[in-house]
Amino acid sequence: MKIRNLVGTRFKERPADCVIDSHAFSVRGGYVKYVSNGIFSLYNPMKRITQKIEQIIREEMDSVDCQEVMFPVVLPGSLWEQSGRYESVGEELLRFTDRNDAKMVLGMTHEEAAVHLAREYGSTYANYPFSIYQIQTKFRDEARPRAGLIRVREFTMKDAYSFHTSQEDLEQYYDKMAKAYDRVFARAGIPEVISVKSDSGMIGGSVSHEYMLLVDAGEDSIVLCDECGYSANMEAADNTVDNSGSAASAELTKVYTPEQKTIEDVCNFLNSKEEESCKAVIYQKNMTDEYVVVFIRGDYEVNETKLVNLIGDKVHAAEITLESGLCAGFCGPYNQNAKAQIIYDKSLEGIENLVCGANEVDYHYTGLNIKRDLGDVEFVDVAKIKTGGICPCCGKKSIKISRGIEVGNIFQLGTKYTESMEMTYTAEDGSSKTPIMGCYGIGVGRLAASVCEAKHDDRGPIWPITIAPWQVHLCCLRVDDAECKAEAERIYAELLKDGIEVIYDDRDVRPGFMFADADLLGVPVRCVVGPKGLANGEIELATRDKSVQKQVKKEDIIAEIKNLIASLREDIYKNVK
Amino acid sequence: MKIRNLVGTRFKERPADCVIDSHAFSVRGGYVKYVSNGIFSLYNPMKRITQKIEQIIREEMDSVDCQEVMFPVVLPGSLWEQSGRYESVGEELLRFTDRNDAKMVLGMTHEEAAVHLAREYGSTYANYPFSIYQIQTKFRDEARPRAGLIRVREFTMKDAYSFHTSQEDLEQYYDKMAKAYDRVFARAGIPEVISVKSDSGMIGGSVSHEYMLLVDAGEDSIVLCDECGYSANMEAADNTVDNSGSAASAELTKVYTPEQKTIEDVCNFLNSKEEESCKAVIYQKNMTDEYVVVFIRGDYEVNETKLVNLIGDKVHAAEITLESGLCAGFCGPYNQNAKAQIIYDKSLEGIENLVCGANEVDYHYTGLNIKRDLGDVEFVDVAKIKTGGICPCCGKKSIKISRGIEVGNIFQLGTKYTESMEMTYTAEDGSSKTPIMGCYGIGVGRLAASVCEAKHDDRGPIWPITIAPWQVHLCCLRVDDAECKAEAERIYAELLKDGIEVIYDDRDVRPGFMFADADLLGVPVRCVVGPKGLANGEIELATRDKSVQKQVKKEDIIAEIKNLIASLREDIYKNVK
Repeated sequence: MKIRNLVGTRFKERPADCVIDSHAFSVRGGYVKYVSNGIFSLYNPMKRITQKIEQIIREEMDSVDCQEVMFPVVLPGSLWEQSGRYESVGEELLRFTDRNDAKMVLGMTHEEAAVHLAREYGSTYANYPFSIYQIQTKFRDEARPRAGLIRVREFTMKDAYSFHTSQEDLEQYYDKMAKAYDRVFARAGIPEVISVKSDSGMIGGSVSHEYMLLVDAGEDSIVLCDECGYSANMEAADNTVDNSGSAASAELTKVYTPEQKTIEDVCNFLNSKEEESCKAVIYQKNMTDEYVVVFIRGDYEVNETKLVNLIGDKVHAAEITLESGLCAGFCGPYNQNAKAQIIYDKSLEGIENLVCGANEVDYHYTGLNIKRDLGDVEFVDVAKIKTGGICPCCGKKSIKISRGIEVGNIFQLGTKYTESMEMTYTAEDGSSKTPIMGCYGIGVGRLAASVCEAKHDDRGPIWPITIAPWQVHLCCLRVDDAECKAEAERIYAELLKDGIEVIYDDRDVRPGFMFADADLLGVPVRCVVGPKGLANGEIELATRDKSVQKQVKKEDIIAEIKNLIASLREDIYKNVK
Repeated sequence: MKIRNLVGTRFKERPADCVIDSHAFSVRGGYVKYVSNGIFSLYNPMKRITQKIEQIIREEMDSVDCQEVMFPVVLPGSLWEQSGRYESVGEELLRFTDRNDAKMVLGMTHEEAAVHLAREYGSTYANYPFSIYQIQTKFRDEARPRAGLIRVREFTMKDAYSFHTSQEDLEQYYDKMAKAYDRVFARAGIPEVISVKSDSGMIGGSVSHEYMLLVDAGEDSIVLCDECGYSANMEAADNTVDNSGSAASAELTKVYTPEQKTIEDVCNFLNSKEEESCKAVIYQKNMTDEYVVVFIRGDYEVNETKLVNLIGDKVHAAEITLESGLCAGFCGPYNQNAKAQIIYDKSLEGIENLVCGANEVDYHYTGLNIKRDLGDVEFVDVAKIKTGGICPCCGKKSIKISRGIEVGNIFQLGTKYTESMEMTYTAEDGSSKTPIMGCYGIGVGRLAASVCEAKHDDRGPIWPITIAPWQVHLCCLRVDDAECKAEAERIYAELLKDGIEVIYDDRDVRPGFMFADADLLGVPVRCVVGPKGLANGEIELATRDKSVQKQVKKEDIIAEIKNLIASLREDIYKNVK
C-alpha cells in the first residue's frame, strides 16, 4: 500500500489526554480514533496488527484442540438470570430492553453462552473433554476507561471455554492452555510475559492465573520474588509476617492519649513502634450496611479484595454513627461491644504487647496480649503484601512489587456455571453428573497496545515482525529523480510479487517528514532509496530499532530484505517453546 | 478434525419452526443454535464457512483498493443525531443509555462512523478518492426475524464506504465495486446472483442496486424481463401502462350504484371494465395524519414504498371520519372537496372514459375524462408492476415477478451524510466542498444461508468447495477392521500434512448414520474407506452431489482427491470474471 492512500493522519504533538506512550502513539500514528468514552474505531494499521494477533491466537487455540465458534454480542437477560449474574454483576454489565421490552445484555464474557451452546453435545461422558473459543466484540461498561486500548469499554477478545468430567482432566488441559498462552505472547513478540496466580474475582472458581506484561505504565500491581520466581497478584499473594522479635508480654494498661487518633500519632505519643500496634480499619457491607472491623498491624494496609472474598460481600468505608457503638479513632479489640463483624489479620499473630484503641475517646491500651486477653481468636490474611516482605514460597524477605498489564487470564471455573445452568452429562456408570469448566481470555486490542508499551522508543512503536502492520517500509527520498523513483518502484513491485507486505512512501515530502511517519508506523524493516546511495549503486536497509543499518548493493536488495525478515522472524521464534 | 470431536449435534427430524430449507439444515446439521429471537450462536462448521466467505470478501475489497478498518458496535447517540438518523430511524435502531445515562445505539450500519473516521484524512482533495470497509457485528432490532440466518437481528456484515470529489468519480468506483461484488458471489459458488436496480430506502441516495439470488424461498419480489434482461426491485420498477385501446370519450353521468363500494362490485354492476375504472386508495401520513388519496386504475395496486418516496412521509391505511369530507367507497376525483393530498397514478393517463366514485353515498360517475373534466393533472407512478406488464426498458409485455434473497447491496449515497455531518474538503482551487459517498454491504451469514438455499438436496447442503467447512469428508466404515482403520488413518494423516481440510469420521456407527451426517455437513469431496473396496485395493471417491462417484486404487487416492478438489475449484473459478 502507498502511504499516501492510507486513511488516517499522523502528527507530532503528543495529545494532552494520553498518559501512557502506547496510547499517545496509537493516536499520533493514525492507529485508532476516539469515538466515545472507551470506544475507538481502528484505522487500517491497527486492524492489520489485531488481525495478525488474532491469527496467532487462532493457530495456538487450534493446536490445543480448541474449536472456533461464535457467540452473539447481544444476549438475552434470561441466560444471565440462569447463572445468577444478571443480578450479581454491577453496572459494567450493560443491560437494556429490546423493542419488545425483553431484557437483553451486551456480552462482557460468555460463560453462559458457552454452556448454552455445548449443553447437548456435552450430555454424554463420551464427548468429553472438549473446548470452544471465539474471537468477538465484547462490551464492558467500565466506570473509568483509560490508557487508549488498554482499558476500554468495547474490545475484541478471544474467550475459550473447556468442559471436563474431572478436576484432574481440567488441570491437565489448563496446563496445556497455559503453554499455548506462552506461545501466543512469545509469537506476538513479548516472551517476557509472566503468569501470576490470581484472585478470580467475578468469574468465580478457585485457581486462576493472570498473564502479566511488566511495564511501568501497567495498572496492576504484581508480587514477585526474584529469589524463587514466585509471582501472584496482590489479591492472591499471602502476606507472611515474622513477629518473632516483638516485645515481651506486659500488663494491659489504659492510657490517656488525648486527640491521638491515627496509629502514627499514637505511636509517636507513646513512643511505641507501629509494628507493635493494632490498627482498626472499619467498613460497612454494601448489602446490609453491617459494620466490619478489621484489626491489623499498624504498618499494614487492608487489601479489600481479600476482605471481600473472605466475607462474601462488597464493602465501603464505614460511616461511623453514634448508634454504631464504635469509637472512631480509638477503636480496639478489647472491650469492643459494637455490633460488628470482627476480623483479626494474621499480621497481629504472635505479638504479645500491642498498643490499641480502648473504645473510649482519648484512651488507648498498651500491653494487649490477644491470646491472653481475648482468648483464641482466628487470624486471617486480609493484608496487602509490601516490598521487602517475606516471600510466601521461599520464606526470604525478597518480595518486590512491580507494575504490569494483564494481557490474558486463565481460570479453573469448577461447576459455577454448569451447576447454576443445570448442564449435566450421563457418566459411564449411567449416573447424572455436572461437568467442570475452565475459561481462558486474551484481549486482542489490549495485547496490541501492550506490545507497543513494551516495544517503542521516543519516536514510535517498534512492532515485532510477526504482528507488524507491514513487514517493509519503503521510502523513495526523491520522487522527482527518475532513477530514484524507478528503483523504488522496482523494489515495491518485486516485494509485492513475492507476497511481502510493503508500505511505500512515494510522496514528495522532506526525508525528515517521511522518517517521522515511518517511525510512527513502526514497521520493522526499512528500505530507503535515495540519490546519494544510488550514485554508488547502493540502497539503505535498516531495522526500525537501528540494530541493523547498512548500505546494500541495489542488485542484492530484494534478497537482503528477505534475509532480514527471516532473521527477525527467527529472533521471535527462538522464544517460542 | 474428527467428527466425534465436533461440538454440536445433528439430527434427522426437520424442526417445526423452520420454514425454509437452509434454516432447517442449519439447525439439523449443527451449524447454528438459537439463542434468542433473531440471535444465533454459530457452531464450528458455520464459523468455518463464514470465515471463508469473509476472506473472499476481504480479498475482493482489497482488490478495489478498499482498506479494512473497524468501527465500534456500540456508537454514541450523538453521532446519529448529527446525521439526523437518531430521530428518523424506527425501532429497528436499538437505542439505550450507558451507566452515565449517555445515549448510545447499536450500529446497524456505519455511515456516521465512516464519516467520523475519514473526516481528517478527507480534508484535502489530494487524498481522494478513497474507500474503507469493515467486517463486523451489527444489530438491527427487526420486528419479525425469520428464516434462520436470512433475517436476523444480530449479524456479521461487510460494509464499505467510498468518498469522492465528483459524481463521475463515484460512478466509476461504483462500477468497479459492482464487479468486485460479482466476483464475491461467483467465488462463493452462486454466480447466478443478479444485480437489480432498487429503491434506497432509509440509507438515502439515488442510484442503488441490490444483489439478488433468485430462489423460491426469497422474501423479496424482483421484476425481471427475459426479453431484454431488465431487472429491478418492486419499488424501483417503473410501471408502464398502455391505455391506447380504451373506450372513446362519453358524457360525464352520475349513476345510482347502491351499496357498490368496491371496484369489482361497481364494474360488475355497471358492466364496465376494471381497466377503465378509477379506484381511490386512501392513506394518512404518519406524522401529520393528513389524508392522501391515490387515484389509480382499478386493476392496479399501490406500491407504498413508491408512494412514501414521493410524499416524503410514511403512511398508514386511513381511518375515514365524517369530518374528513371523504366518502368511503364512493370517493372519486370529480367534485372532490376533502382536505387531502390528491395523487393521480400514471395508470390512469390516456383513459377518456372512466368509472369513478361520485363522492356521494351510492353514486358513481361514468364517462369521466380527466383531461376534459379536471384539466391538466400531474400523473405519477405509484403502482405495483404486474406479471405480464410492459417492460420499462424494451417495451414488451414481458415482465416476470420472481422471488429472491438480497445478498448484497450498493448505494450511491450522494452528500446525505457528509453534508449533515459537515464533512468538507479543500478543493484544488482552495474552495471548501462536500464529498460524495457510496456505500456497499454484504451480510456474511445471510450469504452463507443463501448459498445453502440455492445449493442443497433433500439430504442437506452441497457446499461449494470455496466456502465448504472442510474440503474432504473421510469415512472409515469399519473402525474394528484393522486394515480399514489403518488405511483411513493413513489418508487422514497425508491429507492433513498436505494442508487439506478434512473432517474424519472414525466412529463405530452404521454406514447409513455416517452418510446422513456427511450429507448434513455437505462437504464437497467424500472419501469412503470400507473393507469391501479394500479387498480389491480400492477406495470410494465421490462428490457430495454424486456427479463424481468412483472406485480409486488406494495408492492413487491422495492424488485423486487433490485432482478432484482442483477441478471443483476450477468449476467455481471459471465463473469469476
